[in-house]
Amino acid sequence: MAEEQFLAVAVDAAKNAGEVIRKGFYQTKNVEHKGQVDLVTETDKACEDLIFNHLRKHYPDHKFIGEETSAALGATADLTDDPTWIVDPLDGTTNFVHGFPFVCVSIGLTVRKIPTVGVVYNPIMNELFTAIRGKGALLNGSPIKTSSQDELVKALLVTEVGTKRDKATLDDTTNRINKLLFKIRSIRMCGSLALNMCGVACGRLDLCYEIGFGGPWDVAAGAVILQEAGGHVFDPSGGVFDLMARRMAGSNSYLRDQFIKELGDTTS
Amino acid sequence: MAEEQFLAVAVDAAKNAGEVIRKGFYQTKNVEHKGQVDLVTETDKACEDLIFNHLRKHYPDHKFIGEETSAALGATADLTDDPTWIVDPLDGTTNFVHGFPFVCVSIGLTVRKIPTVGVVYNPIMNELFTAIRGKGALLNGSPIKTSSQDELVKALLVTEVGTKRDKATLDDTTNRINKLLFKIRSIRMCGSLALNMCGVACGRLDLCYEIGFGGPWDVAAGAVILQEAGGHVFDPSGGVFDLMARRMAGSNSYLRDQFIKELGDTTS
Repeated sequence: MAEEQFLAVAVDAAKNAGEVIRKGFYQTKNVEHKGQVDLVTETDKACEDLIFNHLRKHYPDHKFIGEETSAALGATADLTDDPTWIVDPLDGTTNFVHGFPFVCVSIGLTVRKIPTVGVVYNPIMNELFTAIRGKGALLNGSPIKTSSQDELVKALLVTEVGTKRDKATLDDTTNRINKLLFKIRSIRMCGSLALNMCGVACGRLDLCYEIGFGGPWDVAAGAVILQEAGGHVFDPSGGVFDLMARRMAGSNSYLRDQFIKELGDTTS
Repeated sequence: MAEEQFLAVAVDAAKNAGEVIRKGFYQTKNVEHKGQVDLVTETDKACEDLIFNHLRKHYPDHKFIGEETSAALGATADLTDDPTWIVDPLDGTTNFVHGFPFVCVSIGLTVRKIPTVGVVYNPIMNELFTAIRGKGALLNGSPIKTSSQDELVKALLVTEVGTKRDKATLDDTTNRINKLLFKIRSIRMCGSLALNMCGVACGRLDLCYEIGFGGPWDVAAGAVILQEAGGHVFDPSGGVFDLMARRMAGSNSYLRDQFIKELGDTTS
């Protein structure tokens, strides 16, 4: 029963933070550019404080890894076997600034380093994705599962181009997209890795990957949601998923091996 | 006043078709793959009939160009100076099949070949974009305008990878994306050109382009909506926008020249 309580507490935290994000989302257009940057920073920080305070009140002995805290420290804490809350208070900050509706709160809990509880909440589209390891994944309380697509050529892939703009990284990024486009139906890019994973979890999308993203807070919640929806989460090379490696690929239950075959060559 | 009436009639048609799309959208997951293809075809055809019948009842002397009708004929009718309704009954068919919420009805009216009335309706997210030439653009009845972003390096671009999978086209597509990524903030791909143009119109996105899309039905409504929101619509080379050329670029009111400078080299 502990995990149900962990989830309930995390959902409360996500909804409180979501309310702050929703207010900011509709304000960004009315402030200057400098003010937009401040609004993002303030919203990010306010949401992380709000979430951590709520979780700490209930679980003072747990550990915490947050995007904002890690950025302030200049380092991400090591992941231990202790119960650890891994939080991105605002995933999709570029979307937030632009008013593009793919933004979310992402709250994951690892136990013995395994993603065990996940909450991803999009307060603009009012979609709450939740999962507990071994107990299935839900969207707004209803069970979800990955798509039944079993042909790579008909699969819809979601990815992102990341934030690095050096030539080697960008060439790798677009070469990979070029290679994959010969094998799949099409690509979507929506600007939130956590929501991309949830999109595969609920079958709107079939495949996802991203290499070189911000940190474990982008994928800790999404990993358990996608796995509990029947999907696979793995390293883009085909190896075992490492929460701390900033490399992630995911698929529905049918396409993993075909996807790894195409993706693996480009990402070793 | 004629144009207000044209718009009201088009909105009625779009809402009727939107209801059919909404029902199909939530059914696609429950049918076999073969059944999905049939459902798309049936929904597309049913919506085009519904829209054309509604418009013809009010405007029997107008001309009509539709995606489905053109596909059946194997050719797109020539555009004349007569009032001409140009309709995509279901833009975003891949999204429709996958249950990804960017789908819409697109209804444009040209008068003397100029896009004059535009309606783009997303029945899943319940967003209705409308415009009359010279009278502004609206989202769900409230005025919209393009973003105030004037630095290319901070701009969010939306495009698509299209449906052609020959090597020359795909290489052009990804090379263009590669080149642009050195100049802009990031890219989104959401799977509906009409909604991409509306995204720029309401300031959620700053720039859009697509080359080699299906036909004028993808852009006839979006063009007037984006222009009336204060944006620019032009050929990706920087030349004058040609509704029939299957080439389109758009920007907010500030970024056109900077965007053309970067895009023009890749698309001449």
